[in-house]
Amino acid sequence: MKRRMLACAALLFAACGGTQGEKEGAETVEPRTEVTYGEQIALLPVAEQGGLTINEALRNRRSWREYNAGTLSLEELSGVLWAAAGENRPSEGRLTAPSALALYPVRVYAILAEGAYLYDAKAHTLTRVAEGDLRKLSGAQEFVFSAPLNLVYVADLSVYDGREIPAERARYLCGQDAAGYAENVNLYTAGHGLRSITRGSAPEAELLAALGVDADRCFLALVQTVGR
Amino acid sequence: MKRRMLACAALLFAACGGTQGEKEGAETVEPRTEVTYGEQIALLPVAEQGGLTINEALRNRRSWREYNAGTLSLEELSGVLWAAAGENRPSEGRLTAPSALALYPVRVYAILAEGAYLYDAKAHTLTRVAEGDLRKLSGAQEFVFSAPLNLVYVADLSVYDGREIPAERARYLCGQDAAGYAENVNLYTAGHGLRSITRGSAPEAELLAALGVDADRCFLALVQTVGR
Repeated sequence: MKRRMLACAALLFAACGGTQGEKEGAETVEPRTEVTYGEQIALLPVAEQGGLTINEALRNRRSWREYNAGTLSLEELSGVLWAAAGENRPSEGRLTAPSALALYPVRVYAILAEGAYLYDAKAHTLTRVAEGDLRKLSGAQEFVFSAPLNLVYVADLSVYDGREIPAERARYLCGQDAAGYAENVNLYTAGHGLRSITRGSAPEAELLAALGVDADRCFLALVQTVGR
Repeated sequence: MKRRMLACAALLFAACGGTQGEKEGAETVEPRTEVTYGEQIALLPVAEQGGLTINEALRNRRSWREYNAGTLSLEELSGVLWAAAGENRPSEGRLTAPSALALYPVRVYAILAEGAYLYDAKAHTLTRVAEGDLRKLSGAQEFVFSAPLNLVYVADLSVYDGREIPAERARYLCGQDAAGYAENVNLYTAGHGLRSITRGSAPEAELLAALGVDADRCFLALVQTVGR
């Protein structure tokens, strides 16, 4: 009897992908590993199943302008970066979000209170590109400065070199790529009890300089705030 | 004992949101209502829970260029349109996808073999704007012409009138809005065993004319193919 109940409980957990803890009103069961900030942050693999259903994520999707104190766990940081631009078919190097002409000009920077990092999809790591707190450069609204994570989407127009595509059209397509990345994050957060907002503005020149980005060929495509 | 097992089974079903039927390898349980094409198509409310988990949807996300024969059910058509630009907070009129400055300049047209329809988010209906098969005008690749659904995202730049935003910037922001809508659809299809692809090109002037769109203030922001 006891064995059957245990088997049933195990089945319950497996069938739900271990995610029931993230549903509203239920106790959270996902581990919360603290992030160790250094030159490189090795992100964790993201669970194959996890979060609410896609219908629930779409229903919860909204633009948040209020964020609670508290950092993201390594699991949450890993999930958010993977949702934005992670590899979902590693053998082909293809990402969770599409890119016009499969050129993938958009790079994702994670602005944390502890430093600014560049995401490497293949290695699933964050590499520090600047020390210190750059949040003041990643937007203009108060909530940006205190939220645990701001994502900066920078597009490298040089990937369009040699193609017969007018510069404005290339910028437009880069912007759409970034918007797809950001919407993946919006649905990931909506499905994992987190908050986010896609934003359009930041002091571009200062921000790109602080990140060490070549502003001659790159531009700020989009910014996004993530937290809880 | 039997009662406990039943209670456990009920809990298992409830905890999974009754969605396991849509998971890979399991039998599909969702009803398939045939679409009745007329001047107006009343879409169905979308289940609060449904589809795979957000992690699975992100993992399945890819750009499909091969589509099988067969139309979409009314449930599928309803889900896809709601994911693109449906109301998820009806009391506020806010949508599943964000819009820069909350201006919502993007309209969604559904190109079906039986006619072209405009989506009304508030009423959750499709209203016919052109009879006949416009699929040949909604792209250039063979799969576009036979897939059951093409979505055409048209942006109305006049919503930016009176704002101090340069025209190119307004276009850029409209493009990002449309890309968010389309990415919602990509994740919805990936979470419901359907296929889709975001596409950039179509014969704009002909397509807008066929849809009865004023090309002086509107432009083609994005196109997308959906099917199975």
